[in-house]
Amino acid sequence: MVRDLASHPGICSINTATLGFQAPIGEVIEAVATAGFGMLAPWRRDTKDQNVALVAKHIRDAGLKLSGYCRSPYIPAATQQEYRANINANKQAIDDAAVLGAPVFVMVVGSLPPGSKDIEGARHQVREACAELLDHGRRQGVKIGLEPLHPVYAADRSCLTLLSEALDWCDRIEGASADPQIGTIIDCYHVWWDPNLARDVARAGQARRIFGFHVCDWLVPTIDVLNDRGMMGDGIIDIPSIRAALEGAGYTGPVEVEIFSAANWWKRPMSETLLTCKRQLSRAT
Amino acid sequence: MVRDLASHPGICSINTATLGFQAPIGEVIEAVATAGFGMLAPWRRDTKDQNVALVAKHIRDAGLKLSGYCRSPYIPAATQQEYRANINANKQAIDDAAVLGAPVFVMVVGSLPPGSKDIEGARHQVREACAELLDHGRRQGVKIGLEPLHPVYAADRSCLTLLSEALDWCDRIEGASADPQIGTIIDCYHVWWDPNLARDVARAGQARRIFGFHVCDWLVPTIDVLNDRGMMGDGIIDIPSIRAALEGAGYTGPVEVEIFSAANWWKRPMSETLLTCKRQLSRAT
Repeated sequence: MVRDLASHPGICSINTATLGFQAPIGEVIEAVATAGFGMLAPWRRDTKDQNVALVAKHIRDAGLKLSGYCRSPYIPAATQQEYRANINANKQAIDDAAVLGAPVFVMVVGSLPPGSKDIEGARHQVREACAELLDHGRRQGVKIGLEPLHPVYAADRSCLTLLSEALDWCDRIEGASADPQIGTIIDCYHVWWDPNLARDVARAGQARRIFGFHVCDWLVPTIDVLNDRGMMGDGIIDIPSIRAALEGAGYTGPVEVEIFSAANWWKRPMSETLLTCKRQLSRAT
Repeated sequence: MVRDLASHPGICSINTATLGFQAPIGEVIEAVATAGFGMLAPWRRDTKDQNVALVAKHIRDAGLKLSGYCRSPYIPAATQQEYRANINANKQAIDDAAVLGAPVFVMVVGSLPPGSKDIEGARHQVREACAELLDHGRRQGVKIGLEPLHPVYAADRSCLTLLSEALDWCDRIEGASADPQIGTIIDCYHVWWDPNLARDVARAGQARRIFGFHVCDWLVPTIDVLNDRGMMGDGIIDIPSIRAALEGAGYTGPVEVEIFSAANWWKRPMSETLLTCKRQLSRAT
């Protein structure tokens, strides 16, 4: 039996991207808390030019916890200098995650630098960087969450695409661990199509490397693969089956709604989107 | 060492979709032959309402061979009646492939029927159908080529996405064979991102199940994932490395150019597109 989300608001999280960044983070925090969610996941752009400690206090005062902090600056670079700068930007973001109280720093790793066709080279850079960021995260008490992205983003956003690949990287970077500090963020939008999904979710659970679960839906047709994601239930992903697989594999963490929807949900009032998220978490997740 | 394509026009093929279906098949045949290609791969829409035997004769008279015949009507269906109709439409297309003299029938298998979220069910339907089509193809002397499509098409065009998955299906449907009649069509647009590509190409070669190789390029940015594919060399796919992997695995078949490009190549004269294909087969493939 999967957890009943209607009676567990404490594990229901709103990724702030779902609300389209139409309001300052303070208003978003209030809206999410008012709507009865127990968690949120802010982005770096939410905290840009803000006092991160004050944002953290605001979140705590609203009675909310963080499900994660989004997301890493891309890693791969054409020069060693840019590569080091990217790693340093990630360390800074991990520091902010620690101040915010985020248990996990969500990494969208990047892919081919301009002019490159060497995706294996990009993967190598990311793994090297992650080893360093894992150490940094350990010192800060922040875990590293590798999010494999749908292969449609393989050229420009993530050279990491398969869940199995993310787990292989975790094994290479950290080795087996009873208390893993690097793991995976499983977003059903990115992995629903994978014929090996059941196998790999079981493996991830066994290794205790499921650090987050994101939900939205794949619309048919999809007008824009980046910003035309759907509300749970409006598309073709069998989200309840994927959640059941995760929970069957031992996952007890948050269920986080992350919907990029430039033409639809981002144009609606935050309260309406939040109400719909809440309803569809119960009915279609 | 890979084959020098400039000195082997006989293995260089033009998929007629590359030319945007802007002229009747007769004109396309003449243009492809005149441009110095040794092969072409027509689509069902090229032969619709045509006398297929006459088209076959025209192709032969032009000195061309076929690298394949595109492509299967989709298999999965919501009702048994539609499913049977889809299988029968595929048998008819295989009959036409035999008349045309195509060595392989290219299958893009389809995916979720309207209203369905059951991708495993769709996969099951496809495998069952392929077993039947394999028998039909054997009788007609036409091999079955399963083309795994990029996962961006998993909802509506192909529940078959990974090369490893295609090879698993071949093994299940036919078993090991010294002279396989079902195999895979490897299109670099669909598989370039796969972290297991080298492993799976080697496996496909070992099993003698590489029945075709399609080339085009992945543009950054991609405006439309269906019809904004690029000329070889204009994108980020390391096509020469993929071709080297196939040839290293024993592939000796055609190199087929298939570019869906509504806003660019389809708007140019056929002769210009063909000239560019020829040049880029030598320089960037």
